[in-house]
Amino acid sequence: MNRLFSSLPTTVFETMSALARETGAVNLGQGFPDDPGPEDVRRAAADAVLNGYNQYPSMLGIPELREGIAAHYAHHHSVTLDPAREVMVTSGATEALAGALFALIEPGDEVVLFQPMYDAYLPLVLRAGGVPKFVTLEPPHWRFTEEALSAAFSDKTRVAIINNPLNPSASVFAREDLALLARFAERSNAVVVSDEVWEHVVFDGARHVSVLNIPGLRDRAVKIGSAGKIFSLTGWKVGFVCAAPDILAALARSHQFLTFTTPPNLQVAVAYGLTKDDRYFREMRDDLQAKRDYLSRGLAEAGFTVLPSAGTYFLNVDIAPLDETDDVAFAQKLVHQAGVVTIPVSAFYAQDHVRTVLRFCFAKRRETLDGALEKLAAFL
Amino acid sequence: MNRLFSSLPTTVFETMSALARETGAVNLGQGFPDDPGPEDVRRAAADAVLNGYNQYPSMLGIPELREGIAAHYAHHHSVTLDPAREVMVTSGATEALAGALFALIEPGDEVVLFQPMYDAYLPLVLRAGGVPKFVTLEPPHWRFTEEALSAAFSDKTRVAIINNPLNPSASVFAREDLALLARFAERSNAVVVSDEVWEHVVFDGARHVSVLNIPGLRDRAVKIGSAGKIFSLTGWKVGFVCAAPDILAALARSHQFLTFTTPPNLQVAVAYGLTKDDRYFREMRDDLQAKRDYLSRGLAEAGFTVLPSAGTYFLNVDIAPLDETDDVAFAQKLVHQAGVVTIPVSAFYAQDHVRTVLRFCFAKRRETLDGALEKLAAFL
Ligand SMILES: CSCCC(=O)C(=O)O
Ligand SMILES: CSCCC(=O)C(=O)O
Repeated sequence: MNRLFSSLPTTVFETMSALARETGAVNLGQGFPDDPGPEDVRRAAADAVLNGYNQYPSMLGIPELREGIAAHYAHHHSVTLDPAREVMVTSGATEALAGALFALIEPGDEVVLFQPMYDAYLPLVLRAGGVPKFVTLEPPHWRFTEEALSAAFSDKTRVAIINNPLNPSASVFAREDLALLARFAERSNAVVVSDEVWEHVVFDGARHVSVLNIPGLRDRAVKIGSAGKIFSLTGWKVGFVCAAPDILAALARSHQFLTFTTPPNLQVAVAYGLTKDDRYFREMRDDLQAKRDYLSRGLAEAGFTVLPSAGTYFLNVDIAPLDETDDVAFAQKLVHQAGVVTIPVSAFYAQDHVRTVLRFCFAKRRETLDGALEKLAAFL
Repeated sequence: MNRLFSSLPTTVFETMSALARETGAVNLGQGFPDDPGPEDVRRAAADAVLNGYNQYPSMLGIPELREGIAAHYAHHHSVTLDPAREVMVTSGATEALAGALFALIEPGDEVVLFQPMYDAYLPLVLRAGGVPKFVTLEPPHWRFTEEALSAAFSDKTRVAIINNPLNPSASVFAREDLALLARFAERSNAVVVSDEVWEHVVFDGARHVSVLNIPGLRDRAVKIGSAGKIFSLTGWKVGFVCAAPDILAALARSHQFLTFTTPPNLQVAVAYGLTKDDRYFREMRDDLQAKRDYLSRGLAEAGFTVLPSAGTYFLNVDIAPLDETDDVAFAQKLVHQAGVVTIPVSAFYAQDHVRTVLRFCFAKRRETLDGALEKLAAFL
């Protein structure tokens, strides 16, 4: 068996959700909403399943959806994408990421990773033959410096992976951060894989800046998006990539042998969803921002030190003021003694772990948040 | 970029289907039916999309489907599988295969492949770091001998990949073939990955024998199945693997980072579909067998030499009697001069190509087959 893969643990998200199912604890761990999601989008999918096409669609995705994605970014980011050569539909953002890394990394290539990082990144980089170089970000600002990039990039760097908005820190990289990254990527002739699944989930009037909007990155970037996150239907597993034609061609080669294609019925519904007007996206953001504020206030009242959240479904608390120095142990205590599941942020580090931050998902109904807050207040 | 993946061509199935779309030729290439598929199964999916769960399901698949898969094989093959530890749902059989190879192959391991082989096998083996060793099968019997296995297996063999029923040859391996393979796999301590997506599509009263039914393979095999193929809904991309717990645990590690999970709404519908009685599967087989016979007769009448088809959606013709020695060139001629898309079987070989066999898909409505036969008769 493969040594790397067979020795990995189960992903922290699945472990914590399984723990919630077993113990009946309130699940504020894995990032998914607990409401049914937009009814009209689901109705479009049901209609396509009953009356539409259920056989293999075109490998790169149905033309309707690829055109819808291009139109979406023309509208939201004033970016021009050729739907036929710069857009591909994938079976979720995870497949997009895996496919990109297997297509871009030649064994021995150096790959720059920013910690904290989503837990799929490092195993995929290693399995693809990459040599990881880490840039470590720390609370409360979670930003990188020119010095940190200088230490991580070399003339062997071929890929850098960034997540923006950043899960779990709930921070958003600014245009100048991306411009700095672009300078290093250009110097090394590296491709930047940008996981932007949280692009629509930014708060307080902020706007997400895509790598597609950074001149030095437009043609050396792979932008990854997720319809599951855009429409709060995380189980649908419809993702996509946008990249310049030469990069997309390589990504298509790995896509064809990882999943080949993605259910056409769900693709049809996502294409419909992308025609929604600005109001839909504004209301979604406002709704999530209200949830963030509600949980944040509740946690502060219960005695937690809440860190700022500028985007994603998540907010963090600093557990150092509670004299806790081991987030994993504290998360276990919260499950078994308070009945609330969270995610220890140290799970997002490969080295130099930050061990005093705990992540909460606020993308939940009011009753769910109330239930958790009550238990946490009683516990503290 | 990765040299292997960036230098691959587009898969022959996509290329030929794209050609059919562009030229308007009748598509008897890529294997998919052109009817809408079972209405009750589609209705179950529509209902789950509207009224069921659309967020991340459990990573290994919903319990209902994993239990349904175990019950299905208990009934059809008298095999006992533990649904909690020996069954995992994947995003199609392609993901199952990719995940298995990345999880099982350690760079440098030898991997035995049987040609003709589905075109994903070799690139995935190479990308996973495997060293391919080929066993070549030839028409009209497409069987392997003990000598051929002796030449391919060594003490470095860690994986063998078999496809049964075999696409494109439309042949079915017998129990004694699998028992012979088991002897070699045991001697080398290799895992046998068995792509059994065509398991329900066998004709003339034949029964498919699964690796799960071969004593020496039961606990050293990965059985891959496909709900898309079982229910003729190829676009759904719901597949699964069955394997002993220690093997399945490794496969789950790669699944979690390739796609993480599969749409729960489609999983619910497949679980419903698997409760169908024997009559459903018998009728599906009878219907496909009638289509096979219809196309076979028509092609023979048009002047083709038709080879036997014991299973799959496919039958082959031998083009040597037509004095054709290049199946790719002849397939091109058929597209442009006859208006019919087929698949050249040489695309399934990496070396010692068989170049005089052309594959036709018969899983089509009567009108589609008639349209193709008319064009082919006029052409010949
Ligand atoms: C694939 S499960 C992870 C969902 C998520 O994005 C998170 O909880 O961080
Ligand atoms: C993934 S497209 C291939 C479908 C098929 O099994 C075939 O045509 O051989």
